Amino acid sequence: MPSPFTVLARSSECQARTGRLVTLRGTIETPVFMPVGTQATVKAVTPEDLKSLGAQIILGNTYHLYIRPGHELIRELGGLHRFMHWDRPILTDSGGFQIFSLNELAKITEEGAAFRSHLDGAKLFLSPEDAIHVQEALGSDIMMTLDTCIPFPATRDEAARATALTNRWARRCRTAQSPTGQLLFGIVQGGMNEDLRLEALEELKDIGFDGYALGGLSVGEPKEMMLDILACCAPRLPEERSRYLMGVGTPEDLVEGVRHGVDMFDCVMPTRNARNGMLFTSQGKLVIKNACFQRDAGPLDPLCTCSVCKNFSRAYLRHLFQSHEILASQLNSIHNLHYYCNLMAQMREAIRQDRFLAFRDEFYRLRNGQKPM
Amino acid sequence: MPSPFTVLARSSECQARTGRLVTLRGTIETPVFMPVGTQATVKAVTPEDLKSLGAQIILGNTYHLYIRPGHELIRELGGLHRFMHWDRPILTDSGGFQIFSLNELAKITEEGAAFRSHLDGAKLFLSPEDAIHVQEALGSDIMMTLDTCIPFPATRDEAARATALTNRWARRCRTAQSPTGQLLFGIVQGGMNEDLRLEALEELKDIGFDGYALGGLSVGEPKEMMLDILACCAPRLPEERSRYLMGVGTPEDLVEGVRHGVDMFDCVMPTRNARNGMLFTSQGKLVIKNACFQRDAGPLDPLCTCSVCKNFSRAYLRHLFQSHEILASQLNSIHNLHYYCNLMAQMREAIRQDRFLAFRDEFYRLRNGQKPM
Repeated sequence: MPSPFTVLARSSECQARTGRLVTLRGTIETPVFMPVGTQATVKAVTPEDLKSLGAQIILGNTYHLYIRPGHELIRELGGLHRFMHWDRPILTDSGGFQIFSLNELAKITEEGAAFRSHLDGAKLFLSPEDAIHVQEALGSDIMMTLDTCIPFPATRDEAARATALTNRWARRCRTAQSPTGQLLFGIVQGGMNEDLRLEALEELKDIGFDGYALGGLSVGEPKEMMLDILACCAPRLPEERSRYLMGVGTPEDLVEGVRHGVDMFDCVMPTRNARNGMLFTSQGKLVIKNACFQRDAGPLDPLCTCSVCKNFSRAYLRHLFQSHEILASQLNSIHNLHYYCNLMAQMREAIRQDRFLAFRDEFYRLRNGQKPM
Repeated sequence: MPSPFTVLARSSECQARTGRLVTLRGTIETPVFMPVGTQATVKAVTPEDLKSLGAQIILGNTYHLYIRPGHELIRELGGLHRFMHWDRPILTDSGGFQIFSLNELAKITEEGAAFRSHLDGAKLFLSPEDAIHVQEALGSDIMMTLDTCIPFPATRDEAARATALTNRWARRCRTAQSPTGQLLFGIVQGGMNEDLRLEALEELKDIGFDGYALGGLSVGEPKEMMLDILACCAPRLPEERSRYLMGVGTPEDLVEGVRHGVDMFDCVMPTRNARNGMLFTSQGKLVIKNACFQRDAGPLDPLCTCSVCKNFSRAYLRHLFQSHEILASQLNSIHNLHYYCNLMAQMREAIRQDRFLAFRDEFYRLRNGQKPM
């Protein structure tokens, strides 16, 4: 099976790389950030605006779509792309993370996960096979295997048991897959234990996936712990497969992830923080409700080229936020997603020119001399 | 003083007319609907989308902008157009209506209106002169005189006293105006009393305004009462000045208003109803949460050409609404405003072709044989 992923350039100083991932609905340039479209919409952003701001691929949440409106309904209406009017690639997660984070009483057996709908309490069950069938009904371009989540902190034994189950489920997912052309990525768990991670990684490589994800990071552990796991695991993932760091993170996390050889990221942070009035800029974070912006005629970020920074002042954006206007969420989300997507584009360019570490230095320097991680 | 308004065509069967109103920031074709942008934003719609859906002019609320962020701040930032990034015309109301509708304890004296901020209870005062100065600071293209509101029902005496005060204030507004090039419209009050209305109208004509509005309608009175007032007053307004029916209304109201010779309308209905999931279509109203739309792959309105009807299904819009997604408000607002603006465009065309009553018949026929008003 030919790899859907090709590395196009590598940094000579670190693990950073830029490449191309081919999917059913087009090619993605990596490293890439995927805006999160939980309920078949990236919150407060139209598909047209998503394209304008440079989103190459978005993420859909299988758990949410399975519960509402239901994968069969979406299949009947022509799949998730047609349903939400997005013709670029979509990655769907498997639902594992939400089953655990939204259901305190979720029950795991060898067979799968029993849980209750967070909407109406209905009893539901998802096996690894179900997770694949649901994602096939949604028609995403990249599917994820069903995994179990390991809380932080967890004992080594808990982590080992959960990781072993995740890997047995991963094999069942691979077997359950139909020849739809959808890619399937495996998820490396193992908690904060490097040896468990490396063991899990080798087992998943033996099964063989179209890409590999690191799951269970950014779950409350100290930042250095995440970076240690990254530094240990990322380089051991197959060179010719894309590497996806799930649910991460801050702009700094993205820069450090790329440095360690990660190709793909997703996170609700740019959109959720936007709705809460926290904006990302080249100079760091900006809390738009602060009084200092009341009469500020300048753009959110003088170095930003997005439509929001071109057309609106900080004073106006502050007024919208203070007035609880929906347009605040819309404009702030466009800006933050543009910031994230543009950061990735800058990193791709820096890698191509083999000046990634210089880019990283400049990134931290702009943020008022913040020290690199 | 040359009239800023020119009638271009008249119906041979009724009072309907189409014309052109010239303002500082461009020419408006009438009859026209003005989307309401209360707090320096048409709720949930970007300026770019407003242009795409065909909005020629929007309305800003002086009361709200005076309280937050303040007219002096907006002046300092270059005026309301620059503040909200809207370069087409803006009409600002005078604040009168909100002072009364949001402040149960507002106190009226000859001098002006004393009221409390609905946000923090601060004591505020607005005289007719203040209302003009605030609107000059905002820099709107069309200003309105400060008026008093007459509740429904009201005694003839109450109505007569309030109308006389409104007219004295109207004269003070005209006198207070600076030579900024902004147009100033007078407001005809009089409650549901035709004689008071006609008397007020003649007084306002004597003062001389750039346009004339009918205020205090659609305030709870029976529909026929509004239509009677319209039929009586609209034709007595100066032919060569534009006529504005304030705060009205439903699509049927717009059609009947135009039939009686009204040129301009504004109403929160298309945007407010959009956020509540009520959509306007050529076949009548549609409540998107209804179960019958769950699997409906068709557009909101098969006769609609808006971007929402082109790209999204009723099933998807229902899902967004049921999921409390912000995108539901965004898309529904675009559709409803497009419906309103397009209805006006169709009426303009019908008047030009002198087939307005035929258009009106077809309008009601499409709505399942609904009887004309």
